[in-house]
Amino acid sequence: MTRDPFDWIDARAEARRRAGLVRTLRPRPAESELLDLASNDYLGLARHPEVTDAAARAAVRWGAGSTGSRLVTGTTELHAELEAELAAFCGFEAALVFATGYAANLAAVTALTPPGSLIVSDAANHASLIDGCRLARAETVVVPHREPEGFRKALDGYAGCALAITDSVFSVDGDAAPLPQLAAVCAESGAALLVDDAHGLGVLGDGGRGTVAAAGLSGAPGVVCTVTLSKSLGSQGGAVLGPARVIEHLVNSARTFIFDTGLAPAAAAGALAALRLLRGEPGRAARARAVAREVHRRLTSAGLDSAAPDACVLSVRAPGPDAAVRWAADCRSAGVAVGCFRPPSVPDGISRLRLSARADMTVSDISKACEVIIRTAPDGSR
Amino acid sequence: MTRDPFDWIDARAEARRRAGLVRTLRPRPAESELLDLASNDYLGLARHPEVTDAAARAAVRWGAGSTGSRLVTGTTELHAELEAELAAFCGFEAALVFATGYAANLAAVTALTPPGSLIVSDAANHASLIDGCRLARAETVVVPHREPEGFRKALDGYAGCALAITDSVFSVDGDAAPLPQLAAVCAESGAALLVDDAHGLGVLGDGGRGTVAAAGLSGAPGVVCTVTLSKSLGSQGGAVLGPARVIEHLVNSARTFIFDTGLAPAAAAGALAALRLLRGEPGRAARARAVAREVHRRLTSAGLDSAAPDACVLSVRAPGPDAAVRWAADCRSAGVAVGCFRPPSVPDGISRLRLSARADMTVSDISKACEVIIRTAPDGSR
Ligand SMILES: Cc1ncc(COP(=O)(O)O)c(C=O)c1O
Ligand SMILES: Cc1ncc(COP(=O)(O)O)c(C=O)c1O
Repeated sequence: MTRDPFDWIDARAEARRRAGLVRTLRPRPAESELLDLASNDYLGLARHPEVTDAAARAAVRWGAGSTGSRLVTGTTELHAELEAELAAFCGFEAALVFATGYAANLAAVTALTPPGSLIVSDAANHASLIDGCRLARAETVVVPHREPEGFRKALDGYAGCALAITDSVFSVDGDAAPLPQLAAVCAESGAALLVDDAHGLGVLGDGGRGTVAAAGLSGAPGVVCTVTLSKSLGSQGGAVLGPARVIEHLVNSARTFIFDTGLAPAAAAGALAALRLLRGEPGRAARARAVAREVHRRLTSAGLDSAAPDACVLSVRAPGPDAAVRWAADCRSAGVAVGCFRPPSVPDGISRLRLSARADMTVSDISKACEVIIRTAPDGSR
Repeated sequence: MTRDPFDWIDARAEARRRAGLVRTLRPRPAESELLDLASNDYLGLARHPEVTDAAARAAVRWGAGSTGSRLVTGTTELHAELEAELAAFCGFEAALVFATGYAANLAAVTALTPPGSLIVSDAANHASLIDGCRLARAETVVVPHREPEGFRKALDGYAGCALAITDSVFSVDGDAAPLPQLAAVCAESGAALLVDDAHGLGVLGDGGRGTVAAAGLSGAPGVVCTVTLSKSLGSQGGAVLGPARVIEHLVNSARTFIFDTGLAPAAAAGALAALRLLRGEPGRAARARAVAREVHRRLTSAGLDSAAPDACVLSVRAPGPDAAVRWAADCRSAGVAVGCFRPPSVPDGISRLRLSARADMTVSDISKACEVIIRTAPDGSR
């Protein structure tokens, strides 16, 4: 009665408006003429008929939901099949599927850091890893982006349980972590290494087996990998891959496994079908990377500011948040959908377009996309 | 090289084995003769043909995944439709759909507690709310279970932002929170009230509109409600319901909204179809509650220890974790699937069977289930 408890929210909204940082949802239709460089559907499998048919058949056969925690009724034979094939594909002993990649990361970080552990985390790691660090009963040291030396210093002389954490391909700029060096640092200091391969699975490594396989680290005793089913595999969900004892430990102790409803059967089936397509057509991964390199080549030839992509994610600097929003809107008006990242979604405060390359983009798609992005570039972006 | 970083896990596994607390996954087949009292499919809608068909058609029409964050490509017209209908059904101004109920709870707790806030949280709240409290930059006071006086004392004299948090129906024992009293305490002290109606939506309130509507609180300015799409609605996902400015604030600041891939279209469509079925057949909610009361009546008549259910969740005390596991296994052998909750999934350390009533159970289902549970009850359970 005394006051409205949410009045403080209005000041936040006003501050956002003044800073040009208001976000609004733009519901998209099922069919669109837009050329998509905004999604994470790197292999173009989200709408592949084999993937959508598998998802549809699973919904009918197994139900729209899994109906319970994975420990109760939420584990179907489909989940077990997906886990076995994911682990085998990526070269790990075992895998555990979660309802989201976000939940897989929260689980891996919290369950692999017993009280008193030390976490060493790259400064540009994904929000879900950061939230995992915040939830863990461990001390977290954040180290400079992509610097093995920083990890080494933070781990040096630590005798307890330690976990080094890094994205494989960083989600904003698409740059890759120095995995071999990080693995060497961890081996030296006895630390475990957790790699979030959300943007590497399906894109990097032999036939898309992921960044950890590419570095020869999958199956190593101290290495755990998380993946999402929502990007290259065109579906929803996430998984943790690692030694069998780590997976058994997660089953028994990870809160986002025990206390969350299992992944919907349709999503599990969609991801499984996508994985099988990738296994059957391993060239998809290399094609996706080639498209990314070509887009980068054209944009930088025109003077735009973009780092060379290590996978399918590209980012192009904009002069500011307003300019980035207008640039993205102009691209959309010209038929090209691009992502627009502004604070607080960017760790460094720099607004940019975020582009994703897709394996199924044609040469003319690439030409159109680059032509539009270059033509609509605001002053100050070159 | 010096050591295997996961050696500590073996000691944990050994301790679990000694305590009789090992969990193993039991993948279930698509078709089973088992009578289900283990899932959270309270209305029996997860496999309703209209729900599974809607999910299947959505996978084909929209793709197996939403392909990106809700802020980029992950919002389809389907998501917007689901949000509008959920908000209207439950009596709130606006709704926001998340990939899981877990993520919805993390979002609501963290985004509604600016730094320096006070959180007052019921001791038996769900893990996802507890994780939300741990992630929030706020002080959390845990108060005794279902005691408005505890909330009052904790909030008394606090001048900053405060958020009181409670499950509506507690997930382990199925008992209900004293919402009217809690709302009065919050109104008095100027605190906001967050109610997790995961086990109330579809079951309590007029036609299943949920616990908050039943208490006449939906749409109140200081009240926010979270729901899941994975229980009564038979699908996957979650939502936050509240004033429009709260929802806009979540869109702009909730990390599990901004940094997570949007809910898969099939799951959104399945939940929407279930919601429409419920709207069309409002008697489902009352039927589910009546089944729960009848199961409870029979079990307690036979001397088993179970509190009267306020919704569809029932728990029956077991003498210990081993006995609970054996009891659940004996039920299964006799054709009845029941949940078995042991530490650490139970806040009080007491092992029990967890049963759920379903609106679509027949009289003979009820008889069979109760007969089996009573017949297999271990010594010490009466
Ligand atoms: C690096 C990284 N890790 C984890 C996630 C979370 O995965 P999901 O969206 O499938 O929950 C994302 C993206 O959303 C990501 O970019
Ligand atoms: C009370 C409560 N809140 C939230 C959740 C999380 O919802 P979901 O499983 O849909 O993510 C659950 C169950 O899993 C629950 O029981």
